[in-house]
Amino acid sequence: MKKIINAVDDFVSEQMQGMALAYPDLRVSLDPKYIARMDLPQAGKVALISGGGSGHEPLHAGFVGTGMLAAACPGEIFTSPTPDQLYEAARIVASDAGVLLLIKNYTGDVLNFETATELIHAEGIPIQTVLVDDDIAVKSAIKTAGRRGTGSTVITEKIAGAAAEAGYDLDTCAEIARRVNRNGRSMGLALTSCTVPAAGKVTFQLATDEIEVGIGIHGEPGIRRESLMSADKMTERLTEEILSDNSYSRVIREWDRINGTWLEREIVDETLGRGDEVIALVNSMGGTPISELYIVYRKLVELCDAHGIKIIRNLIGPYITSLDMQGFSITLVKFDDELIKLWDAPVKTPALRWGI
Amino acid sequence: MKKIINAVDDFVSEQMQGMALAYPDLRVSLDPKYIARMDLPQAGKVALISGGGSGHEPLHAGFVGTGMLAAACPGEIFTSPTPDQLYEAARIVASDAGVLLLIKNYTGDVLNFETATELIHAEGIPIQTVLVDDDIAVKSAIKTAGRRGTGSTVITEKIAGAAAEAGYDLDTCAEIARRVNRNGRSMGLALTSCTVPAAGKVTFQLATDEIEVGIGIHGEPGIRRESLMSADKMTERLTEEILSDNSYSRVIREWDRINGTWLEREIVDETLGRGDEVIALVNSMGGTPISELYIVYRKLVELCDAHGIKIIRNLIGPYITSLDMQGFSITLVKFDDELIKLWDAPVKTPALRWGI
Repeated sequence: MKKIINAVDDFVSEQMQGMALAYPDLRVSLDPKYIARMDLPQAGKVALISGGGSGHEPLHAGFVGTGMLAAACPGEIFTSPTPDQLYEAARIVASDAGVLLLIKNYTGDVLNFETATELIHAEGIPIQTVLVDDDIAVKSAIKTAGRRGTGSTVITEKIAGAAAEAGYDLDTCAEIARRVNRNGRSMGLALTSCTVPAAGKVTFQLATDEIEVGIGIHGEPGIRRESLMSADKMTERLTEEILSDNSYSRVIREWDRINGTWLEREIVDETLGRGDEVIALVNSMGGTPISELYIVYRKLVELCDAHGIKIIRNLIGPYITSLDMQGFSITLVKFDDELIKLWDAPVKTPALRWGI
Repeated sequence: MKKIINAVDDFVSEQMQGMALAYPDLRVSLDPKYIARMDLPQAGKVALISGGGSGHEPLHAGFVGTGMLAAACPGEIFTSPTPDQLYEAARIVASDAGVLLLIKNYTGDVLNFETATELIHAEGIPIQTVLVDDDIAVKSAIKTAGRRGTGSTVITEKIAGAAAEAGYDLDTCAEIARRVNRNGRSMGLALTSCTVPAAGKVTFQLATDEIEVGIGIHGEPGIRRESLMSADKMTERLTEEILSDNSYSRVIREWDRINGTWLEREIVDETLGRGDEVIALVNSMGGTPISELYIVYRKLVELCDAHGIKIIRNLIGPYITSLDMQGFSITLVKFDDELIKLWDAPVKTPALRWGI
């Protein structure tokens, strides 16, 4: 294993120490681990909090700042943060306007975020939860705990963060975040496996002429292994799956903040088709350089055009990664006027910044 | 070779087509190849132009926009752009205030940029040239054409671009850019070689327990091959070399715009030591994820502290890369009040953006 690291066990904390030094306007706590805005709480402003396993940088810590996350809680690599991290982060940034908790749909995350929700509620802080489950590669709720949360997380954090910054109330922020998720679809592929430091070797082996299509962000297996193909074919492979996925229905749990209990609710994806406008995220899995992403974007525009779908915003680069994995993912989120306005709002974080 | 590409020969043009689609406010020409600001020329504003081989993305095309480059000319991978590209780009963006041409110090680039300078001068456009040669790994003018231009290029483009945006005249912009170069030092190392698409295989072989220290951005060999070491040791290895390099002197060529001829001039690096303030660039070579860069930054701050040098600005991420190479480089540029002000000025480009 070749990495720029010291002791494997120090990977997350040393990375956080580096961030603390690089961004002195962020509050970095190592015990429990969270990165938070220094200028919160602010009366009337919802605090958007997320987190998840490390190894997906810049997600989530790189998105903490004005107009995006109030706080992020990193777990160990590919491991959920613990409830106490989320609880302590919430206590630091929450005002009377409450906390919106963004949960990527993985079994461990859901378990710990749900416990944290109950702790934060018991503290008297109004809280709402939003589950992100946009990865269309995995549909079966039998094989896994439903679809995984991937690229839409980035878009949701930007938009819900802008809503919070604009002073929208908790229920409205939650409604907007859920809308982004229902409007979003993602799929990715890998040219190489990532190498988890603690394992010291690649998570899966791929031959020099093989790719893994439908990959997860933790090195989970994809839909199938296929032969190495051209960038255009890869882009077509993912885009056609994304564009043929519609009206996916599933039952999810959401916190009922009035009654202090969990509700099961059926949610159905919005349709995506001719005449729709989208934001396109072309995301590097970590080891793929940006030059190759532009080649993907070129073909993606052509394919969307052919389907009558117009890309009106784009984000191209490494935003939700899997350590050093080579590969990319595509996320399309249907946009409406309100989502465009919130997307365009100023943001200032380590990884995403404009207007400030 | 595993890459997200189509035909090898289309790598650069397809990437540019992707950029054209992603950034409709940029003018992308495929014949000759350049990316330029759409809102230039503007009377009284110097046009900052650079370029170089492709494969170092986001450099240079990713830095075209308000407050940075007026235009960038990409060559084929690791190959200089031709004089006609630079000449045509200059004709598109130059006002009466003239053109400042930034040249990374490589034999091919210098040759073609010098020819372009003469063509642009013959067109009646005032022109100044600035050579960037900050890579302290290579000092001998016998072995190579002097020190290579690497990380300081990014800092120079931001600062000279801000000076041009602020309406500084050509000679002042040139003086500021040269000051950044005299104030800057860089060094890098590689964990893996890059793979040039046309070659189809790695440029050099490294064993699983080896790194190459003092690497160039084209896969040029480093100072020496060493054993794999910890992130802290790697950071120390580069930082100590950078901090012990002082008062490097060399003779370079600069265009004499009054007499229309080349002048040879001796330039000497500014000292860097106790009490100085710097910007630190911790740069991924392309395949190294940002998480590892923060571990480097953590140690870099400690080492600079021990030397009495204060890092007052930082830039951490992939900015001047070598395709998919894993590794990193460190650049330190001594800052003064004017350089800080220009660094902080608003910028809006695909790869670097704030305040707009």
